[in-house]
Amino acid sequence: MLSPVENLSDNHIQFLRQTLGAEFVSTNASDREYHSHDQSFHHPHLPAAVVFPDSAAQVSAVLKYANEHLIPITGWGAGTSLEGHTIPVLGGIVIDLMRMDKLLRVYDDDFQVDVQAGIKYKDMNLKLAQHGLFFGPDPGANATIGGMIANNASGTRTPGYGATRDNVMRLEVVLANGEIIQTGTRSVKTSSGYDLVHLFIGSEGTLGIITQATLKLYPLPEHFSVVIASFEDIEGATRSVSAIMGAGLHPIALEFLDPYSARVLNTTGEFRLHEKPTLLMEFHSATSHAIEHELALAQELCSDNGCISFEAGVGRAERDRLWKMRHSHYEVLVRTHPGISFLVGDVAVPISRYPELVAACERELLTLGLRGASIVGHAGDGNAHPVVPYLPGDDASHARAEQVFANMVHIALELGGTATGEHGIGIGKIPFMAQEHGNSLAVMRAIKNTLDPNGILNPGKMF
Amino acid sequence: MLSPVENLSDNHIQFLRQTLGAEFVSTNASDREYHSHDQSFHHPHLPAAVVFPDSAAQVSAVLKYANEHLIPITGWGAGTSLEGHTIPVLGGIVIDLMRMDKLLRVYDDDFQVDVQAGIKYKDMNLKLAQHGLFFGPDPGANATIGGMIANNASGTRTPGYGATRDNVMRLEVVLANGEIIQTGTRSVKTSSGYDLVHLFIGSEGTLGIITQATLKLYPLPEHFSVVIASFEDIEGATRSVSAIMGAGLHPIALEFLDPYSARVLNTTGEFRLHEKPTLLMEFHSATSHAIEHELALAQELCSDNGCISFEAGVGRAERDRLWKMRHSHYEVLVRTHPGISFLVGDVAVPISRYPELVAACERELLTLGLRGASIVGHAGDGNAHPVVPYLPGDDASHARAEQVFANMVHIALELGGTATGEHGIGIGKIPFMAQEHGNSLAVMRAIKNTLDPNGILNPGKMF
Repeated sequence: MLSPVENLSDNHIQFLRQTLGAEFVSTNASDREYHSHDQSFHHPHLPAAVVFPDSAAQVSAVLKYANEHLIPITGWGAGTSLEGHTIPVLGGIVIDLMRMDKLLRVYDDDFQVDVQAGIKYKDMNLKLAQHGLFFGPDPGANATIGGMIANNASGTRTPGYGATRDNVMRLEVVLANGEIIQTGTRSVKTSSGYDLVHLFIGSEGTLGIITQATLKLYPLPEHFSVVIASFEDIEGATRSVSAIMGAGLHPIALEFLDPYSARVLNTTGEFRLHEKPTLLMEFHSATSHAIEHELALAQELCSDNGCISFEAGVGRAERDRLWKMRHSHYEVLVRTHPGISFLVGDVAVPISRYPELVAACERELLTLGLRGASIVGHAGDGNAHPVVPYLPGDDASHARAEQVFANMVHIALELGGTATGEHGIGIGKIPFMAQEHGNSLAVMRAIKNTLDPNGILNPGKMF
Repeated sequence: MLSPVENLSDNHIQFLRQTLGAEFVSTNASDREYHSHDQSFHHPHLPAAVVFPDSAAQVSAVLKYANEHLIPITGWGAGTSLEGHTIPVLGGIVIDLMRMDKLLRVYDDDFQVDVQAGIKYKDMNLKLAQHGLFFGPDPGANATIGGMIANNASGTRTPGYGATRDNVMRLEVVLANGEIIQTGTRSVKTSSGYDLVHLFIGSEGTLGIITQATLKLYPLPEHFSVVIASFEDIEGATRSVSAIMGAGLHPIALEFLDPYSARVLNTTGEFRLHEKPTLLMEFHSATSHAIEHELALAQELCSDNGCISFEAGVGRAERDRLWKMRHSHYEVLVRTHPGISFLVGDVAVPISRYPELVAACERELLTLGLRGASIVGHAGDGNAHPVVPYLPGDDASHARAEQVFANMVHIALELGGTATGEHGIGIGKIPFMAQEHGNSLAVMRAIKNTLDPNGILNPGKMF
C-alpha cells in the first residue's frame, strides 16, 4: 500500500520544475485547494503539488519519476466528477491536463476527431459544428474528454448515441511506468488483439493517464422533434419506453421526471408541465416527412399506455428550450429549497425493472421526511438519479441520506442493475464493488496490479 | 513456454472420464481429426483428446486440472473460424461446447437473452423470432455465440447493428485456473469497474473459456428495403457511402462488389448486375412512409456521385433474395473457377481510405495473373475481403498468394487500418501484431500472463 505524500521534497519539486518549466508546477495554496475536491460531498484532500503538462512526453516524465519515488498521481480534467474520482486522497501530484486542450485533426469523411484529453466537450462540439459534426455523449457538466473517457460518462443523449465507451476509437495513454502507448484504430471494425481501449475507458485514472483520443462523431441532425408526454402512473410511462424502443423508433433521448420534479420545473414559469410521471423525448430524422410519421407512431404507443398529454414540438428552438428546462432541474431544485442540501444518486437497472426501481426509491425517499426528495432519470436506458435531501451541518441527517443512498444501490443490484449508471465508482461506490462484481473483482485487481504494480495511479479509488 | 501434449496419460483420461462421463471424452481418430482444423488453409494439428462438457462446472474442473498438469486447452464452437483460431497447435484437450447450446431465458421487455456459449446463432435467431427479436451481428457461417464473442465476429449487418462486441452485456467465463466469473450487467448503462466484458470479447479463447452470455437483441424490423446501386468508378461508390452515412440515413448493410464479383454472380442468372463497382444496401424503418423518403434520399445521394443504376426493392422477399445472392458469392466463385483455390483476406481501414485500399488490393491481385481475383467487402465499415487465387498443390503459387495477402495487410495498416476487420488474429495474423499495436502489445501480453500464467489457453494464437 502506497504511503501518503503530503509534501514533496525540494528534489522532487526541482525535478518537476526542470521537466515542465517552473511556472507549470504549483504548490501554492489556491491551486492545491482547487484540486482538493470535485463536485461531490466527498471530503477534500490537498495534493502536495499540481503540475500542468503540455505533452504526453511531460506526463510520461512525471509518471516515470513518480513511479520510481512512490509518489501518488491523480489525473485531473475539469473537476466535475460526482463520486470523488479526482480527490488526491493520498496527496502527491495532481496532473491537470488543462493545457492539453487542442483539437488536433478532424476527419470529415470518417466522422472522427483527434483531440488532446484536456479539451472540454462543449468547447470541442462548438468547433466541430463548423464541420457539421458533433460528439454524441452529453454529461451535462462541461467535462473534459479525458475525464469523460476515464469515467465512461454519459447523459441524456445515450439512447441515441451511446455512452462514451461507445464513441472512442483510439487512445494514447501514459502508463504508470511512464511508457506511452497507442491503442485502438480509426477503422470502424477490428478484431485485432485485446480491446485495451475499453479497458482504459471507465478505469478512472487507475490504469494510466489518457492524453489523447480519437472519437467517433455524428453528423449534426437537421430535423428535430421533441415530445413531453405525461402519464397517469409510472408504469404507463415506463411501458411506453419499452413500446417505443420495441417499435424500432430511435429516440435520441428519453428522460423521466417524477411529479415532484415537474412541479419544481413549473416554478420557473417557462413550461406548464402536468405534475404527473412525465417523459421527455427527442427524435432526429433524415427527412421532415419521416419525423412526422415517427411522432405519430410514438403518440399512438404512448396513448396505448395511459398517456394523458402528448405535446410535440418540431425544430431546433423547441429542442433547445426543452433541454434548457431539463438541465436547469437541479439548479431550480436547490434554489427553491433553501436550507436543504442534496445527494444525487446514480443507479441503473434493466429497463423492464425501471418501474420497480423508481417505486422503491420513492419509498426510500419518503422515510427522510424532507422536502425536495425526487427522482429524475434517463428512462431510455434504465438510469435513475434519486435526489436525496439532507440538512447541511446536521451529521445525523447526512448519515440518514447516505443510508438511503446505499439502500437504493442495493435495490438496484437486486434488480439486476449496477451501482452506477454513469457517475462511476470513485470513492463513493467502493463499498458496493464486491456485491456487484463478485469474484471478477479479483480479476480487476490483478489487472490493476499488473499495469500499476506500485499503485501510484489514483490510489484510494475503485478498489 | 508450454510443451506440446500429443497424447494424454491414462491418469489424465481417467480424470476426464470421471469428471464428464466416459461418453463425453473422446480420443477416437474421427473426433480428433474433426477438431484438428478450422475452415482456413492453416495446417491442422490433432488434439490428444476432445471433451464435451455440459456445464461451466465441468469446464472449470477440466481447466483446473489442465492448469495443474500443464495441458494445452483449446475452446471449440462450430469450427468456422478463418485464421486457425481453433487449431490445437500444441495438442492437448479441445473443449467442444456443442452440448452447451441452450437458450436459457429471453427478456422480452429488455430485448436481451441469456444463452449458453455453444448455441449457434442461426438456431438462436430462429427461436428468438417467436419473440419478435433477433441478434444483430451476422457472420454468414453458422458460428456459435461463444465463437462469435471470442472472435468479435461481424458481417454484413454491422453498419446497422455493430459487431459482436457492441451486443454483449454480460459473460460467464471460466478462467485458466478453473475459477468461474460473472462479469457485466443487464443494465444498458454502467460505469462500474473495469470493462472485463470487452476484454474477453475478441480474446480468442486465450484469457478464458466463455460459457454463457447475455446478448443485446433488436426487434425484428417490419419494413425493409434493399438497393442495388452501380457506379462508373469505385470513387463514386465510396463517396456515396460517406454521403449516405453523413446524411443521417441508417443503412443496416452497405456492401461493395467489384466488377468481377458482379460478373461471377451474374453467372447464376438470378440477377442481372451491371459489371461495375456496385453497392448493396439494406434499410429498415419504423414505418413504410419513412422508408420511401429514406430511399429517395439515398437515390439522390448516389446520383450526385455518379450512380449509373439504382434499383430499389421493398419487402422481405426482396431482402432475402438480395442476401441469398450476396452470401452465395464465394460458393459461386469456387464453382466457376475449377482448378483454382482462394485465400480470403480481411482488412479494414477508415472509410475515407476505402477507395485507396480497394485500388491497392486490385493492383496486388493483378500481379498474380490468375482468374478469380476479386474484392468484396463491407463498405459501410471500411472492411474489404480480397479474394486471392492460387493453384492448389503448387507451393510457389500458394507462397505468392500469401505474399499478396501480407502486402494487403501492410497497405491497410499504412492507411490507418487494421490487420483484421472481423476474422481475428488466430495464427494467420500474428506476424502483423507488432506493426499494428506497437508497444501496447506488451500490455496485452502482460494481461495474458496475469490471467493465464501457465499459458494453457489456446497456445500459439494471438501472440
